[in-house]
Amino acid sequence: MIISYKRKAHYHETDKMAVVHHSNYFRWMEEARVYFLEKINLPFTKMEEANIFSPVVSFTCNYHFPVWFDDEFEIKVKAVKYTGVRVNFEYEIFNLTKNKLSATAISEHCFTSKEGRPLSVKRANSEIHTLLENCLKEN
Amino acid sequence: MIISYKRKAHYHETDKMAVVHHSNYFRWMEEARVYFLEKINLPFTKMEEANIFSPVVSFTCNYHFPVWFDDEFEIKVKAVKYTGVRVNFEYEIFNLTKNKLSATAISEHCFTSKEGRPLSVKRANSEIHTLLENCLKEN
Amino acid sequence: MIISYKRKAHYHETDKMAVVHHSNYFRWMEEARVYFLEKINLPFTKMEEANIFSPVVSFTCNYHFPVWFDDEFEIKVKAVKYTGVRVNFEYEIFNLTKNKLSATAISEHCFTSKEGRPLSVKRANSEIHTLLENCLKEN
Amino acid sequence: MIISYKRKAHYHETDKMAVVHHSNYFRWMEEARVYFLEKINLPFTKMEEANIFSPVVSFTCNYHFPVWFDDEFEIKVKAVKYTGVRVNFEYEIFNLTKNKLSATAISEHCFTSKEGRPLSVKRANSEIHTLLENCLKEN
Repeated sequence: MIISYKRKAHYHETDKMAVVHHSNYFRWMEEARVYFLEKINLPFTKMEEANIFSPVVSFTCNYHFPVWFDDEFEIKVKAVKYTGVRVNFEYEIFNLTKNKLSATAISEHCFTSKEGRPLSVKRANSEIHTLLENCLKEN
Repeated sequence: MIISYKRKAHYHETDKMAVVHHSNYFRWMEEARVYFLEKINLPFTKMEEANIFSPVVSFTCNYHFPVWFDDEFEIKVKAVKYTGVRVNFEYEIFNLTKNKLSATAISEHCFTSKEGRPLSVKRANSEIHTLLENCLKEN
Repeated sequence: MIISYKRKAHYHETDKMAVVHHSNYFRWMEEARVYFLEKINLPFTKMEEANIFSPVVSFTCNYHFPVWFDDEFEIKVKAVKYTGVRVNFEYEIFNLTKNKLSATAISEHCFTSKEGRPLSVKRANSEIHTLLENCLKEN
Repeated sequence: MIISYKRKAHYHETDKMAVVHHSNYFRWMEEARVYFLEKINLPFTKMEEANIFSPVVSFTCNYHFPVWFDDEFEIKVKAVKYTGVRVNFEYEIFNLTKNKLSATAISEHCFTSKEGRPLSVKRANSEIHTLLENCLKEN
């Protein structure tokens, strides 16, 4: 299951090199991840109501080509690993306006309660566990 | 009582015009306000422990001269009005590197509980009320 | 001529009060302004190709009601004054999800060359001048 | 040669989980990198005057422990590899207030002209080449 998230780069996302600042790619990928979870029927609000949070454990991003102001970009995001206590997402960011692959990335997330205590989704919530398992099967 | 807050402009705060984006001035003034409150012995943590929050009600900023990457700036901040239910701050932002006044601004804040219910500091907490009253007397 | 710009609030736009940080409203209004100019056939790229830039001279924002993560908001933006050397925009930000007016604001912009020299659009570029005049007539 | 960069976390850097948003770590590391280059007598302005820019090619960050509002943090940064056409930096981010290692990271940068054409610092500028070589020798 691959979800596609698209929008344009904002003026306030550029820096003095006239391209989008590299830190904003992590914000864009968060937007794409939120959208992905919504599409698999697991919106953040459902997670939070179940007292399950998913902080970032690690993030690697490879930058290939810039995105300029007003360029349209597409992020293809998919879950690539899910163990019950961790989930990984992979991302491809395309600069659609310039027809170039802009970046590739992978993020790893654990699960915690609101208080930051680590937890196993497998044990804590079978509905959410099944939703996460299923979105990997469909890859 | 006027407090001076200084630092340099960061690379990630610039935009494609090569100057600091106007939205960042509001973040800088928040930093200066946090610093001001700390200096009058009223750190945010003391406010929050007393369950008193101070959201922005209005903000006006006049922009006179840009700030470029790595320029040092100074913000002079003072409280200019305090009624028990509202407080106003005034700001002057100087570009020290270019020796120019960069911006002037005024913000107005109300007080609420964590849940967003409006409250009177005068009634809710006499220690905090006195600290805010005193920092105006010394103007 | 009133243009409506809509999107959802991103997770990375919230702060520790769990609402969208007040500085982000200025970024949202820039997005709405860019969209407005595009709709009146005056995209930023056309401005910049004509070597006309429009820095913010002043901004006033009144905050009425918060926007939370994932809330959908709408910004209604219109040009309210244009003198050939200055243009003003007015904004209403609605929290559509909570059905409340979130903020109202007004911005003032001058025109400069890329080097920052003030200029009169009226004298510098009659096509752009006419586009700006017309979008006010239609109010 | 290890450089230490310290400051406090700003309110506007937090998100609704009440901790600093993970994207801000990349901005903090840029601040630390700018500071590092200044300390080895190679400020960004010297780079830019020589028409040498150093975009990020890849970034990996491992998150260990959060940083809360007003926590003081320290970033220890050092150059770990320099080939004439690429340079790598390593970072350790400590939450000094909570006395915990917050994150570790590594970034890789290439060199380009303002127009984005790749270049070899070794060939383009012997002074800058020597400064970069020397800061690795001292590790």
